[in-house]
Order: sequence, then C-alpha cells, then structure tokens
Amino acid sequence: MTETFTRADGRATDQMRTVKITRGFTTNPAGSVLVEFGNTRVMCTASIEFGVPRFKKDSGEGWLTAEYAMLPAATHERMPRESMKGKVKGRTHEISRLVGRSLRAAVDLSELGENTINIDCDVLQADGGTRTASITGAYVALADAIAALKAAGVVPGEPLLPPVAAVSVGLIDGHVCLDLPYEEDSRAEVDMNVVMTDSGEFVEIQGTGEHNTFGRAQLGELLDYAEKGCRELIAAQKAALGI
Amino acid sequence: MTETFTRADGRATDQMRTVKITRGFTTNPAGSVLVEFGNTRVMCTASIEFGVPRFKKDSGEGWLTAEYAMLPAATHERMPRESMKGKVKGRTHEISRLVGRSLRAAVDLSELGENTINIDCDVLQADGGTRTASITGAYVALADAIAALKAAGVVPGEPLLPPVAAVSVGLIDGHVCLDLPYEEDSRAEVDMNVVMTDSGEFVEIQGTGEHNTFGRAQLGELLDYAEKGCRELIAAQKAALGI
Amino acid sequence: MTETFTRADGRATDQMRTVKITRGFTTNPAGSVLVEFGNTRVMCTASIEFGVPRFKKDSGEGWLTAEYAMLPAATHERMPRESMKGKVKGRTHEISRLVGRSLRAAVDLSELGENTINIDCDVLQADGGTRTASITGAYVALADAIAALKAAGVVPGEPLLPPVAAVSVGLIDGHVCLDLPYEEDSRAEVDMNVVMTDSGEFVEIQGTGEHNTFGRAQLGELLDYAEKGCRELIAAQKAALGI
Amino acid sequence: MTETFTRADGRATDQMRTVKITRGFTTNPAGSVLVEFGNTRVMCTASIEFGVPRFKKDSGEGWLTAEYAMLPAATHERMPRESMKGKVKGRTHEISRLVGRSLRAAVDLSELGENTINIDCDVLQADGGTRTASITGAYVALADAIAALKAAGVVPGEPLLPPVAAVSVGLIDGHVCLDLPYEEDSRAEVDMNVVMTDSGEFVEIQGTGEHNTFGRAQLGELLDYAEKGCRELIAAQKAALGI
Amino acid sequence: MTETFTRADGRATDQMRTVKITRGFTTNPAGSVLVEFGNTRVMCTASIEFGVPRFKKDSGEGWLTAEYAMLPAATHERMPRESMKGKVKGRTHEISRLVGRSLRAAVDLSELGENTINIDCDVLQADGGTRTASITGAYVALADAIAALKAAGVVPGEPLLPPVAAVSVGLIDGHVCLDLPYEEDSRAEVDMNVVMTDSGEFVEIQGTGEHNTFGRAQLGELLDYAEKGCRELIAAQKAALGI
Amino acid sequence: MTETFTRADGRATDQMRTVKITRGFTTNPAGSVLVEFGNTRVMCTASIEFGVPRFKKDSGEGWLTAEYAMLPAATHERMPRESMKGKVKGRTHEISRLVGRSLRAAVDLSELGENTINIDCDVLQADGGTRTASITGAYVALADAIAALKAAGVVPGEPLLPPVAAVSVGLIDGHVCLDLPYEEDSRAEVDMNVVMTDSGEFVEIQGTGEHNTFGRAQLGELLDYAEKGCRELIAAQKAALGI
Repeated sequence: MTETFTRADGRATDQMRTVKITRGFTTNPAGSVLVEFGNTRVMCTASIEFGVPRFKKDSGEGWLTAEYAMLPAATHERMPRESMKGKVKGRTHEISRLVGRSLRAAVDLSELGENTINIDCDVLQADGGTRTASITGAYVALADAIAALKAAGVVPGEPLLPPVAAVSVGLIDGHVCLDLPYEEDSRAEVDMNVVMTDSGEFVEIQGTGEHNTFGRAQLGELLDYAEKGCRELIAAQKAALGI
Repeated sequence: MTETFTRADGRATDQMRTVKITRGFTTNPAGSVLVEFGNTRVMCTASIEFGVPRFKKDSGEGWLTAEYAMLPAATHERMPRESMKGKVKGRTHEISRLVGRSLRAAVDLSELGENTINIDCDVLQADGGTRTASITGAYVALADAIAALKAAGVVPGEPLLPPVAAVSVGLIDGHVCLDLPYEEDSRAEVDMNVVMTDSGEFVEIQGTGEHNTFGRAQLGELLDYAEKGCRELIAAQKAALGI
Repeated sequence: MTETFTRADGRATDQMRTVKITRGFTTNPAGSVLVEFGNTRVMCTASIEFGVPRFKKDSGEGWLTAEYAMLPAATHERMPRESMKGKVKGRTHEISRLVGRSLRAAVDLSELGENTINIDCDVLQADGGTRTASITGAYVALADAIAALKAAGVVPGEPLLPPVAAVSVGLIDGHVCLDLPYEEDSRAEVDMNVVMTDSGEFVEIQGTGEHNTFGRAQLGELLDYAEKGCRELIAAQKAALGI
Repeated sequence: MTETFTRADGRATDQMRTVKITRGFTTNPAGSVLVEFGNTRVMCTASIEFGVPRFKKDSGEGWLTAEYAMLPAATHERMPRESMKGKVKGRTHEISRLVGRSLRAAVDLSELGENTINIDCDVLQADGGTRTASITGAYVALADAIAALKAAGVVPGEPLLPPVAAVSVGLIDGHVCLDLPYEEDSRAEVDMNVVMTDSGEFVEIQGTGEHNTFGRAQLGELLDYAEKGCRELIAAQKAALGI
Repeated sequence: MTETFTRADGRATDQMRTVKITRGFTTNPAGSVLVEFGNTRVMCTASIEFGVPRFKKDSGEGWLTAEYAMLPAATHERMPRESMKGKVKGRTHEISRLVGRSLRAAVDLSELGENTINIDCDVLQADGGTRTASITGAYVALADAIAALKAAGVVPGEPLLPPVAAVSVGLIDGHVCLDLPYEEDSRAEVDMNVVMTDSGEFVEIQGTGEHNTFGRAQLGELLDYAEKGCRELIAAQKAALGI
Repeated sequence: MTETFTRADGRATDQMRTVKITRGFTTNPAGSVLVEFGNTRVMCTASIEFGVPRFKKDSGEGWLTAEYAMLPAATHERMPRESMKGKVKGRTHEISRLVGRSLRAAVDLSELGENTINIDCDVLQADGGTRTASITGAYVALADAIAALKAAGVVPGEPLLPPVAAVSVGLIDGHVCLDLPYEEDSRAEVDMNVVMTDSGEFVEIQGTGEHNTFGRAQLGELLDYAEKGCRELIAAQKAALGI
C-alpha cells in the first residue's frame, strides 16, 4: 500500500534522515557533542558537579539531571526567550524530564560516587525530532564525560551502561513513518517517541494520538519502525565513540 | 507464577481499586465531579469561557485546556504550595498537558463554537494514579458541562464524543499489576499510563522504565491489563452519566 | 424597622447559615476538616513539620503558619490559577495572614516544642464568608493535629487553647445582618469580620466601609450580632470535637 | 492607674507624636507630600493617568489605586528590596489595599471622569505607624492632585470629599496608648488602626490581639483615643491645605 | 562657536547645576545622604551587614554591593513599580552594577574585615544625572558608615579611600555640555558618564553615541568637561564631610 | 618595555586572536552567523518580525532589539540556566542593551519600514570578549537579514549602514593588550570595550578600572589598540560579506 505514498524529502517510510554525531564540539564541558538528524541540530553537553541534590545526600550514589531548551532562533518563526519571560514552558519541562529519565537508564548511579552529571541539550536548529536527537547525542556526551571523570581518578567504578537512543515514529496519512521532520510531525495522526537500549528493550514509550486514536496492530508496526531506527542510531553512537 | 505474589491491599493483579464518581460535587462550575480510585480523590471541574485563545481566533472551532494541581496537604508529607513558590513544577505541567490532550480526544472542537472549556483537576488526596483518575473524572465533568451548554442554547452541534478513560499499570517485582497505589507506584520497575477510548483504541501511551527496561512481551501484557481497567472505568463513567 | 427587610435566603438578620463541620475529611494530614457555612465549603488541614522558621530557631517555642487559597472553579466565574500566573494576589496574602494570626491565638507556642503547624485552607466552593469559615474549621483541624502529636509523644505540653471562631457581619440596606453570603457581601455598605474566643473576647476585628462609613452605634450592633454568631460557631466546634 | 505608666518618649497616653505635613515635596507628580509622625517619614504622591482599569471601562467613573512600599534602608535593620526578590510581601499587599480602600472613601469616583489616580506611599524612615501616616499624608496629596486636575480642566465635577485620616492605638502593659512608635508597636498586646472621616465616622477598623485578646470595654477606650488622634490629624490636614 | 548656543536653564556649557549634599538625611542606616544635582534628588544610604557573600567567604576581606532604584513617581510620567511587575529592568540592573563598581574603587576591602556594605540609591525626583548623583552621594554615605563602623570598634583598619565622584557630559547640538538635565540628556547626540578619583584618574568611562558617533577630538573635550565637573563634586563631598 | 612581557597565548600585545566569521550557520533565521574570536564562539542571528513595539507605533520607522545569553555549558564551570532560575542576571541585561545600541548605529531605522529586527547572540563557548564578538558577528547577520528583506520586497529603502565592530582592550600587568581572553580579562587592571564604525568613529566606549584606575595617557594608548582591532574586524566583516 505504501508504494503510492511519498514523503516530502523522498525518504522511504522506514528510513532515517542523515545522522551525524560530532564529539568535542566545544571544549569547556567534560563531554560536548553536536548531533544532527537531518536539519535538526542539537548541542549536547555533560558537565560534572561535585556533590548531589539533597534527596541523594549520604546515599553513596550519584545523580544525573538534564535540561533541554531551544535557542530563540532555532525555529522557523523566532520564539520568545524563556529566560526573558521568566517562565519555562510546559513543553520544555516535559522534554527535560524525558531526557533525564532516559539518560539515567544509561548510567549506574551507584558506581558514580556522590557526583552529579548535568546534561544540557540546546537546540541550535529545529526540524522535528529535537527530543530524540537530544537523547541520542547526550549519550555520547555522557560517555565522554564519564571517561574524563575516570581519567581524572574521580570515579573508581564503571558507571557507564550500554547505549540508549531515541527516535520518533508516526502515522502520516495512515502510513507508519520513521524519524519525522517538522512538516510531518505537525500533521501526524499519531506521534510516538521511543527510547531503547542496546539490547532492544524499551526505556520509554510515549505515544499520542491527538489527531486520531490507534489500535494494537498500528502500535506494533510503529514499534517495529522505532526499533529499526534505534538500532541504526546505536550503531552511529558506537561508531562515534569508536566502540 | 503470580500465585505467590500478594499486593499490599490484597487485590488481584488485574483488579481495580474501588472507583466512585460523584456528579454535582460543587455547584458553580458547569460540570463538577469527585472521582475516587481507592484513596485517591480528585475534584474535576469543567468551566465554560466565551472565546478562544489567540491561535484559534476566527477558526470557527472551540478549544479545551486543562490544569492539574495537588493541594499541599494531599500527600503524606505536605508539599509547598506552587503559587507561593511562584513556580509550577515540571511534573505539574506535564500532567496538565496530558489531561488536556486526552480530553481533546473526547470532544469535537468543530462542534463547540468559539468557546473554551477549562478543565481543572485538583487532587484532594493522593494515593497513586492521580493523573489517570483526573482524566477519568474529567470526562464526566466535561459531559455535564456540554449538556449545560447545550441546554443554554450556546452550542448548536454535538461536541461530546464517546468516553475516554485512563489507568495505570506497572511491573511490581516482575508482576504486571493494574491501578497502582502510591506504595506500588514508587517502587515499580516499569510504570505506564494508558488512555483509551470506548472503542478500545489508544489515545495515549506513556510507559517509563526508570528502574528497569521492558520488552515487547511485557508491553503486551501491560496493555492487556490496561485495556481491562479502561473498560471497567468507561462502564463506571457511563453508569454515572446514566448512558 | 427590620420587619419589612427580607434576606434573599429567607434567614432572620441574626441567623447563621447551616454550619457543618466534618472531621477526618482526608487522611494524610494530621488534622483534616471540611467546614460548610451554607454553600461555602472549605477544606482545612493542619500538618506538622519538625523544626521552626529561622526567626524562631533555638527559642524552645513552636510556630503556626497558614495559607489560604481558592480553587479556580470555586467561584461563579472561574478565576485564573495563582500558581500559573506566578503571583499570589494581595487578597490571598491578606487572608492567609489573618488566618495565621487568628489560629495563633488558639495555641500556646511555648507548649508546642520546636515544631511548626501548617494550616491550609482551600476553598472548594465560595459563597461568602470563606475567611471566617476557614478560621472556624481550621481550629478543629488544629485540635485534631495536636491530639495526634500528643498521642505520638512528640508534644509533652498542652498547646491547645480554647476555641477561636470567626464570622462576618455587615450592613445591608441599612440593616445589620449576620453571616453574609456572596450576594450580600458584594453589596454591603459595611463589611466586618470578627474573630472571637470562647470567653467572648476579641482576637481580631476588621471592619470596612468602602460603600459607606459607620458610627459607634452601628459598630455596637454589628458586634452584638458577631458575638451571637461566634458563640454558635464555638458550640458547633465543641460538638464536632465532642468536648 | 495610668499615673505610674510612662511612655519611653515621655508622651501622655493620649498624645500624638509631632505631625508635619509638607506639600510640594517633589514636583513631578500632581500631588506630592512628605508626612511625618515623629520619626516616621513617608513620601505620599498622587499621579493622574488617563483611562481606567478594565473592570471600570465605560462606567463613566474614575478609579483610585494605591501602592505602599518601604525603602530597604527605612528600617533599623536593612530589609531586602522587594523588586530584587521578585516578590511583594503579604504585609506590603495588605497595607496597599488598606490605603486604597481608605482613600476611595475620600473621593467621589463618579465626579472624576474616566481617570485613574495612583497613590504611592514610600516610607523613607520607619518608626511605627507607617500605614496611618501614609493614609493621612495621601489625602493631602490627593487634594493637590485633584486641584491640579480641575485647574487643567480635565475634571468638571467635584471629586474631593472631606478629609480622611488614620491613626494607630494599642494596649501597652494594659494601658491604652495613642500613635505607637515601633518600640511600642512591636510589644503591644493589642494593636489597632482606625481610619476616620471628618464627621467622625469610621472608614475602617482593624484591631488585632496577637499577644492578647480584648473585650468590649477596652475596645471602647481604644476607639476614644483613636477619635481624638484622628480629629487632630484632620486639623493638621486642613491647616496644611489652608482650608 | 559656543557663543550663540544657550542652554535651557541658562548655564554655561561647562557649569554644574547647584549641588547639595545633606548628611544624616535619615537615621536608621549607618550612613544616609540626600544628594541634589539641580532637581535630581537621590537618597543614598550605606548599611552594614555582618558576613560576606559566598564568593568572599574566608577571604578575610569585605564586600560592597549597591542597588539603585527609582520611586514610581520620581519621573514626569509615573512608571510602574518594579516590585509589582516582579521584574527589575535592564537599566536598573546596569546602573546598580555601575554604582557598585564605582564605590568599590573608594574602599579597601582588605581593611574592612568580613563585613558587607550595602549601598542603596533611591531616586526621589529624577531630572537627568541620577546615576552620577547616586555615585557622588553614596561616597559620602559610605564615609559616614565607615566612621560609624570604626567608632563601634568593628573595623580595625582604614578601609575608606579618597573620594570618587561622577558626572555626565554630552554633545547637545554639537556643543559639549556638562551635567545634563533630562531635557538635554534625552536628545544628546552623545551621552557620557565619567567616574573619577580625587587624583584625577578614571574609574569608569561610559560613552554612548546612539544618536551620533564621535571622534577622538570630541572625546578629549568631553573628558575635559567631565574632569572639571568631578573636581567640583569632590570639593563638595569634602566640604560636606568637613575634610 | 613590552619586550619582557609575554602573553599566555604568545600573541603580540596589539594582536587579535584568529577571527572567523561563518555565514549561513543555521537556516531558519533571516541572518545566521557563527563568529569566533579564538576559542570564543557566538551564534548571532537576525530575525524579522512585522510590526514595531508600542513606543514606535505609527512612527513610520522600524526598530532593532537584541538579546545576549550564554549557554549553561559555555563557561569553564557550568552556570545555572537563567530560564530555570526565572531571572535574568544584571550582566546579561547589560550586554543585551549594549549589543542593541551598537547595532542600531548600523541601521537607518527610517529606511526599515515598521518592521522589527531581533538580534540574538547565544554564546556557545566563552573565552573572553563574548560581547565584542557578539556585536561583530551580529553586524554580518544583520546585513544578511536586510538583504533577505530587500530581496523579498519588504523593504524599499536602504537601511544597512557601514559596518560596526567591537573589541576589548585592557591593562595587564601594566601593559596595554588587545582582545583579551578569559585568563587576561579576569585579572586585568583596566578593562575596556570599544565599538567603532567603518569611519573610525566611536559608537560606544566602556572602560572600567575595578582593579585600578587609569589616566589620560593610558586611555589614549588603549584607544589606539582598540582602533587597530576594530579596523581588522571590519576588514573581516567585509571579507565575509564579499564587499
């Protein structure tokens, strides 16, 4: 049935956009990565801070937290800067929390010592999939930061777990599609973000049918596409890290 | 294997807590419902406002928005009041957005005229499942508000769609369980909220494995339990509304 | 002269609305009360927190503080949620401070140990007199919380003092009236809130003549009515507490 | 009994501090007054703004609003600046609202046209009675502003009503005292602020017994003292205005 | 060429407005000064606080910080109060930082002990040059506060350095002018604020040509005028302090 | 004397760091430039918005405004995100205002029509001179944006004026140095930022001697160095723009 359906950018429905992961994008943070999913570009950094938040004090464990934000000129229409409005939007909070949860699945906090890793994902250019690119790039920044921590002798254990990556899938005009750019994302009947581990297990599934509902069969097909995408992204992460 | 597993409150793993839906809980809003899932109690109201937000102006359509909040004394340990801190927490924003998206699946905005429905879900007592109880109760408040609108002659069309309900499922000590109270929710390996329609389609799936990841087979079982819960909740909604 | 004056709800000018005090309304806080003055309904809770604010540190005394708020759908027209606006209104601050001062007259802080009692008064439904209902209900929640503290062995002394209650009085079309509902409150020439103790002494008098001024004779009559109301409310508090 | 009671500043119990009212203290606002009650000094201004707030639009009436604030160095211990904290304290809101209500009793809004008068009371030096000095001084600034409006031909009617003044009274060691400085105010058993008109009627009574309660007889005596103080303040207002 | 150019207030181009410095303007802060540059009037205070901010902890040194603000009625058109808007304007921040840097040039922090001096500059009436008047007046308040500290035996060293003063210069219709009032300041082609020490050295130069650019020769002439103004201001500071 | 003074990065005292200007860095804004001064990297964008702020309404003129910000991981130690703190720092406000004033010197607002240009300067990596790099890069983004506006037929006139560039100079151990990296900037006795036009005129001079004061002769030398730097930067701007 998909033969008559054409995506605006000519990709096959199960094809990722070009993915690029550039390590060492900036030099001050312990880990700094530029990740690109097509035209979406996100700067992902991992910074180390000694000590942990109050609820982790004296636990012997570390913590990882994340903040996601868009530069005001990242989108087609410039958006007001959240710092100037004095308020962070609900969408920003929601994605920051998702990125934090996802990356905590890639780190063994008990091996980290009482240190905190701050992940920052700042979107330089937005074309859909900013949250999935953020998670995918942040894993690489995290790996570099942990390596730096270990090299500095701060961390005795092995906190880094195998890769975690994320991708979006959706239903566009009834067709399951992988890795939606903005043009597809904004009109998808169903929009789903899937975070997976190297072993093919789910870390998080968030599927929303605001323009339509979906059944079990469609869910299965969406997850098949997502799994294909995540496997390719994890391969890209490993290639970038040389592992 | 589940024979040796016992839930703290003695329920079967696929058993809901006692659900109560009280219409007309307060009298000022167009719809006002007290919903109870065991000890979780949420006041859900639907209020009408003439006009729509700017992005809907002159669309001929209406809008529905939702706000979720916890009273400070709703939880075991009192939580600081968000209004006094001058900031809304990320969790609050995230749930407000989920409730709004879910309820928009239960209303045909094109039949509403340029009116806005404000859903408020205020948690009086929290014992897990506050967001799913909110969605389930808010549908009944929405139905009452739309009936009031129609009785007042404000709405010529038929904006109300069939019921939408939501329930939590999770993995507790490796066992799939339905409708998690706080004690289970806080230690679940996997925590999933599922929003479904009367026809058994998904509106939203949010599954998180912060303490563990999960595979396809477990996902299937979780969704089976969620479907059972949602069907029972939709029956309770219909009974409350006398439809 | 009052024979030709009729109140909209048919009450005598010196008659209270029906008062109901429900203890144990919710279970998480140490004390939880639903208080109703006619259609006005307020959830009053008293929560215990170990330690005291900085200005009471090492004083050997406890502290009591209070927060009052309206749910957005409590009023006839829905009001914007203060947490979402990031600002608390002056009226809210003013009533929170009044409730705190009034309840501190019902507790001997030197018998409390270095503990803090947080009173929360959340208005579920507003029909005038929300601040006086809050004070009246909060005393009962306070009594329950202190009993719980003593049962837990946290408090060695006897911090609870005799009841404090509050009522509104006003001048409506030149007639002194007791316990004003919203319809009367919004058009009263003079509006007065009186907080009294069990022994008939004043804790607080706040009388405002925004639509008219008032003289000594009228003040005397207003206070007579208020005293009658407070005596009845204190009887209701005692009945609820079984003392 | 009062013969053995001596006030720290040697005044009789029913004696005001020295009151000074300086008109034309600054030149930009339509009315600008420096009012002094002993060491308490408040700059009171009245500024005109064309138009009215939304709730008064098309009413044909004007509006009057007030803001009270303390300079950070006004008090003995410097207080943090509210603008820097991004929050206005409850006490500030409460006094701003009191000043606004009191001054609205001195202006006939229906004679003002659709103009708004902004009263600002900024405390330069605080030694008790800042709110009562604010109200007393603001009346004079208001009179000057209205005269300027009328001279400019903006206001055809006669909006200015006879003077309103305010004073504090309290119980100190069981003695009723008039016009409390900070040293007395902070330890008063009962603290009361009374706003009166030229004809001896009450505009507002706010009496609080945080350190003790009070009975009818004491209330009467407190009001006698307050009436004496307000009469003297109104004489001072008239002298300042040359009326 | 300047012979045909006349300033609105009749001053020579290199003439200061009348400068008045009143010590002991209020009594609570350690130092309190009213400074007047013509119609510009600023209350400058210096308050002592034990301890230092975190970044100075255990340095053995003190700190000095400054806050500048305008009263809402200080300007011709009343401006909204920053505390009520919950935001401090960029201009306010910028001037507060300038005042702080300038006054730190007049104090040897290593002689101060671990104490903090808070400078507050509150503009009562604004007619141009509020930031330069603030710096000039704040030096005198600082001197008084340090003398009080030394008299109280808190400071063993000699933290006060020689005077620092500030003045504005500008290009008006091509003519260099000293000490611009609002009318000139708002239409100046170039506006420059210069902070100098007693020895004629620069502490800060801020020159802006928003309405026009300027060259080296003009810069030289602007600085000549500024130097003349600062010398006169320092003489006035010394006269006020009797040194 | 300078022969024995060596800069940490080996540059001559009057030598700029390597400057790179990359146009078209991102694609959504009308102009997007990455500017690099050594390790300092700033993304500068210029976005068009139809209409002007209220104070420019119906003036027939356009407006230009600027916002500067640092990404949290731009600095050596990660800094808290301003949006999350709900407050913009004074330093950020101050630089945003400087960038705006400087760029307004490069645009003829009367030729722009009633359009607003929003300049955003987001620092990706900070190593001193972020404000001067921002101004220098923003001019190029502005030029591209105006070209796009003209190509789209929105702007009939010629709003772009000749280049404006900015550079820092300072006194390091008594030596005048051009273009300070962070290591020098943080310990400079005098720190000065100079904004110049293509014709060698000053737009803005901001010189601060927090660690020391400076005299006329040093000022002259500092300005000589700044002029050399700005000329080189303007050459780089022209080369980037191909003019």
